[in-house]
Amino acid sequence: MHEYFMKLALLEAKRGTKYTHTNPIVGAIIVKDDEIIARGSHLRYGCEHAEKNAISTCETPEKLFNSTLYVTLEPCNHKGKQPPCTDTIVEMGISKVVVAQLDPNPLVSGKGIKYLQDNGIEVITGVLEKEAYNLNYAYNLFHSEKRPYVVLKQATSLDGKLAFTNKRTQITGKDVYDFVRNERDNYQAILVGARTVLTDNPKLTGANTSLFPPKRIVLDADGDIFEHNNLNLFNNSLSEVIVFTKQKCKNLPSHVTIITPKEFSIKEILSEVAKLGIQSVYVEGGPNIHDQFLASGYWDEVITYISPILLGGNNTSSFTSNRITNEKIQLHDTKITKLGEDIRVSGRRVSQCLQD
Amino acid sequence: MHEYFMKLALLEAKRGTKYTHTNPIVGAIIVKDDEIIARGSHLRYGCEHAEKNAISTCETPEKLFNSTLYVTLEPCNHKGKQPPCTDTIVEMGISKVVVAQLDPNPLVSGKGIKYLQDNGIEVITGVLEKEAYNLNYAYNLFHSEKRPYVVLKQATSLDGKLAFTNKRTQITGKDVYDFVRNERDNYQAILVGARTVLTDNPKLTGANTSLFPPKRIVLDADGDIFEHNNLNLFNNSLSEVIVFTKQKCKNLPSHVTIITPKEFSIKEILSEVAKLGIQSVYVEGGPNIHDQFLASGYWDEVITYISPILLGGNNTSSFTSNRITNEKIQLHDTKITKLGEDIRVSGRRVSQCLQD
Repeated sequence: MHEYFMKLALLEAKRGTKYTHTNPIVGAIIVKDDEIIARGSHLRYGCEHAEKNAISTCETPEKLFNSTLYVTLEPCNHKGKQPPCTDTIVEMGISKVVVAQLDPNPLVSGKGIKYLQDNGIEVITGVLEKEAYNLNYAYNLFHSEKRPYVVLKQATSLDGKLAFTNKRTQITGKDVYDFVRNERDNYQAILVGARTVLTDNPKLTGANTSLFPPKRIVLDADGDIFEHNNLNLFNNSLSEVIVFTKQKCKNLPSHVTIITPKEFSIKEILSEVAKLGIQSVYVEGGPNIHDQFLASGYWDEVITYISPILLGGNNTSSFTSNRITNEKIQLHDTKITKLGEDIRVSGRRVSQCLQD
Repeated sequence: MHEYFMKLALLEAKRGTKYTHTNPIVGAIIVKDDEIIARGSHLRYGCEHAEKNAISTCETPEKLFNSTLYVTLEPCNHKGKQPPCTDTIVEMGISKVVVAQLDPNPLVSGKGIKYLQDNGIEVITGVLEKEAYNLNYAYNLFHSEKRPYVVLKQATSLDGKLAFTNKRTQITGKDVYDFVRNERDNYQAILVGARTVLTDNPKLTGANTSLFPPKRIVLDADGDIFEHNNLNLFNNSLSEVIVFTKQKCKNLPSHVTIITPKEFSIKEILSEVAKLGIQSVYVEGGPNIHDQFLASGYWDEVITYISPILLGGNNTSSFTSNRITNEKIQLHDTKITKLGEDIRVSGRRVSQCLQD
């Protein structure tokens, strides 16, 4: 029965997708005598949390007395943009709280639960915990590993080529183009290397489906892009552009920031990205950048779009560098879908072992 | 109505798959007063043709008088391993013959139809012609273009890698392994380069599902494999091994033949393969051989097995050579299937524009 109501709370949570920014998405269901009396979710960054939202949709506050709250994430007991949820739960006389996942944010973790228990509320934890974790995989990983969730995204031909040598090349079709622009909005930043910027001159914008368009990060140790002030990244100020470089450059547009990391390693760069509060990064290559991420071990998912075309010859190949490696890296939780004539394959570094 | 009965004849034809060797597969249905009175197919190389097989399954020969024969390929009127079918059709008093496809074999082409017409039989041609052509694409292409049907087959990681550098590498899983062994039996020869032989030491055998196991062809201009007489290809005599080379070599096992083509081009090699009567070739690489075929234009289909793994680094990439090319080659009639954790993608150089 607990799992049944928690599944509904998980569904409720999804209503906040792309609107809660650095906050997790959270869903809540309130049940009394086996009947759902209220539901709610965290719908937007800065607005009411899911528990409050549910409580405020309940017909009469009296009904909440002796009810059970199902919530996908531990209720907070600190004051952020909103007052603590735990206070309201206690005030309303809710007698039991079922929680899917403890909050990994050190400001909350365990404290919310303790506060409820100290106030005589029965608390059950761990119901559909993995499913709840998966709702906010980036948020969870960010707080537990102090680095953003990293997706390596590429589009290849059937012979694993990304482009004609040093030439912008459209590999996949219209369906993938549209899908990827939407997909970008699921992440807080898009990252590419300098060569991709110089060859493709991309805007790196999403489809405007998120309230917080992804920031744009360029890895450019030598500062090659600074010689080209007509690049779309410099002229389009829809979101911040962050350039990791060893070079200095003056007179950049106000939406462009420069960061010089202590060393030019993936680990160090991700650590700097985490300091900016960015919880997820969608890495669009090129092949050498992808291979650096792969070699570093700091990646979580690979998304590959495959087109039924061949390039052959000496053209640019996926995940390629001079690195010598004998390690076969297996992806887990693989998903395969068709998009027009193309194929989307996603897989994770570590299995989430989800139900269903 | 003609299409309905021809569809059944096409299904009938498939009963001969893998058993008719260099002969086409053919199906026949005999209809009288809208009722099917007999069916037959060419079941095995050297045995009865489909028309004869259908005629002999008919309850009483009298029934055949004034009936209509549906046959997927033009009836032969020459004596090969079997007497001419056209004679029997005339003898039995069949009054109408509906043919899907004319026989491209110059021994038959058009002559069978003419003989029937000269003997007062009404002949209709071209019913589901493309579908019938597709049943025997290799046989048809072999007779029209004087070269074998060429399939380029590969197994890649998601980053388009085939293997660790110079090391035998299992890319795909058990399901693909089994499937490929069966698939090999659909072709009359398997072709690889010398490097594949030296790195993988393959047997290049099928699953014994064909009466005529595929021959094994090696492209080895410099004769590198001759220095290794313990190779599986030399010790396994299940089918003939044909080595294209500029070198001479004595004391080879009796199942190994050497051919020295005039020039070492794909065109010339395929011309020599055609002279041996081989109608289809399954080219298993490596990447440079595949790219040579791609560049030559002498190929018909690409089959790619993709595994959800990554190799990265400087490992061996699919369809790769020093060739500079800016041509995007689009595959047609793409089919995508899942095999265990892996994906099979096939596509053709030219669309067959089939019904359904």
